[in-house]
Amino acid sequence: MIGESDIRSAAAVVAGVVHRTPVVTSRTLDERVGAKVFLKPENLQRGGAFKLRGAYNKIASLPAGTDVLAFSSGNHAQAVAIAAGLRGVKATILMPEDAPTAKVEATRGYGAEVVTYDRYGQDREALGEALAAERGLELVRPYDDPLVMAGQGTAALELIEDAGPLDLLVTPVGGGGLIAGCATIAKALGVGRVVGVEPQAGNDTQQSLAARERVRIEVPRTIADGLQSDVPGQHTFEVNSQLVDEIVTVTDAEIVEAMRFAFERIKLVLEPSGAVGIAALLEGRIRPGARVGVILSGGNVGAERFAELLR
Amino acid sequence: MIGESDIRSAAAVVAGVVHRTPVVTSRTLDERVGAKVFLKPENLQRGGAFKLRGAYNKIASLPAGTDVLAFSSGNHAQAVAIAAGLRGVKATILMPEDAPTAKVEATRGYGAEVVTYDRYGQDREALGEALAAERGLELVRPYDDPLVMAGQGTAALELIEDAGPLDLLVTPVGGGGLIAGCATIAKALGVGRVVGVEPQAGNDTQQSLAARERVRIEVPRTIADGLQSDVPGQHTFEVNSQLVDEIVTVTDAEIVEAMRFAFERIKLVLEPSGAVGIAALLEGRIRPGARVGVILSGGNVGAERFAELLR
Repeated sequence: MIGESDIRSAAAVVAGVVHRTPVVTSRTLDERVGAKVFLKPENLQRGGAFKLRGAYNKIASLPAGTDVLAFSSGNHAQAVAIAAGLRGVKATILMPEDAPTAKVEATRGYGAEVVTYDRYGQDREALGEALAAERGLELVRPYDDPLVMAGQGTAALELIEDAGPLDLLVTPVGGGGLIAGCATIAKALGVGRVVGVEPQAGNDTQQSLAARERVRIEVPRTIADGLQSDVPGQHTFEVNSQLVDEIVTVTDAEIVEAMRFAFERIKLVLEPSGAVGIAALLEGRIRPGARVGVILSGGNVGAERFAELLR
Repeated sequence: MIGESDIRSAAAVVAGVVHRTPVVTSRTLDERVGAKVFLKPENLQRGGAFKLRGAYNKIASLPAGTDVLAFSSGNHAQAVAIAAGLRGVKATILMPEDAPTAKVEATRGYGAEVVTYDRYGQDREALGEALAAERGLELVRPYDDPLVMAGQGTAALELIEDAGPLDLLVTPVGGGGLIAGCATIAKALGVGRVVGVEPQAGNDTQQSLAARERVRIEVPRTIADGLQSDVPGQHTFEVNSQLVDEIVTVTDAEIVEAMRFAFERIKLVLEPSGAVGIAALLEGRIRPGARVGVILSGGNVGAERFAELLR
């Protein structure tokens, strides 16, 4: 388990390194949802997603000079590459071979070495651990690590500090690191409910909460490439089973409509994973409170891919 | 002429009505430009553009209950519609019949009556004045009005307050209202240079500054529909001929590349007019200072239109 002090410690570590992203509001969204909605646009974060918060908090905790390895569908990869560069160590990144080109290129651009694998045929955890042992690297997990979870929670801490009290906090759920950190600080600061959103095809956390144990599903096929986890993390599930009130799901088509809404009405670029919170609210999947916070997790989508998704 | 006190008065009038948009930075942009760049994303403003600042400052100055009329290529229209609604008066908007559908619909959505005209065949000023006289409405000009200019200048005031001292301020130039207000406050606050950017096909202000008198050009055909002015305003030219250091131009193709850059690297949706400052900097048209402010004027572009422009 992690607690409020872990998120506050992480906030001190990442201060001056991560952007304090603004709070964005939209009257159109408020009208559609029937609540005052406060958006935390982590697409404006360094690396285009919230992931730097956790990666930096973790890597800063390692002995100086420790080179790192990460396996990631993309945004965690970029975050580890950036964080490693900032700490002056080398990052090796294991990425699925079907990861978006923009993400692979951006990761290399941040100075990391990229090694690819087959998302549907190879177990990335086993591969990652083998590579870490062989090269003597420290594995930076994308979510199932208390320091990573605590770092991600700083997004919710900033949102609550800047927007004021919230009745409800909504975040995307992949492996569960973002919502674990956010729920920890949100509940400590009096937010009434924390609701997670998964793609319909990848509802491993929803199933796990219902079963009261970690359920493994087939690797989900969804456009939300950041939320394709097949089983909740051990540490994240421990937190989320206690603090998360509900998980709802959205379809890929609903995600695309939310991406369009964000583009046309809020003027923000969101990748599919980043749009699931807005999708769930627009579709009425979540009973809104009066004051709702939503973490928009990332915006790493190429312009051509965006155009293709909207066709 | 207007002065610092006019912009400061406008700031008091629009406070709590307009969004104080954040300052956004991008390390990728800094590297490409070779300077620290501070973006003012007025695409996140109410109505999707900076125009509400001037429109509200003007309409708030009228006797209570004064209904208004505006002629506009789009963003001013939405701004007047919103401002009129906030002041409890009726807005009639004269729009070119080829204005983007999203802008026409949004304007109607804000409660205004829309009357259309032929951009290439009819004189909008004459039409607007006739309609105003016939219906007894007060004409709210899109730029050539000291109160409108002063309102637009609040964008630069906020940017300088939030980002700190700037060596250079870059803004788009259509009729010249935005840059006139921004140059007034920027020069008063010690910004070294103010540079405007026009589409290559619509460089009426560049030609006018060179000729030292207002030059009328053919109605420009450019994708930057917000910058299709054919002659500088009288009031705006008076200010700009004294305070603007330089006007540079960018092509439509360069604007599209800047829109793509903003989408993929900054995660912001910019309409063509809103991207000209980034385009000029990326193309090296402006000698950058160490600390550069850029007003991103708006983001009203439909997702389909965006995809079409990038093809």
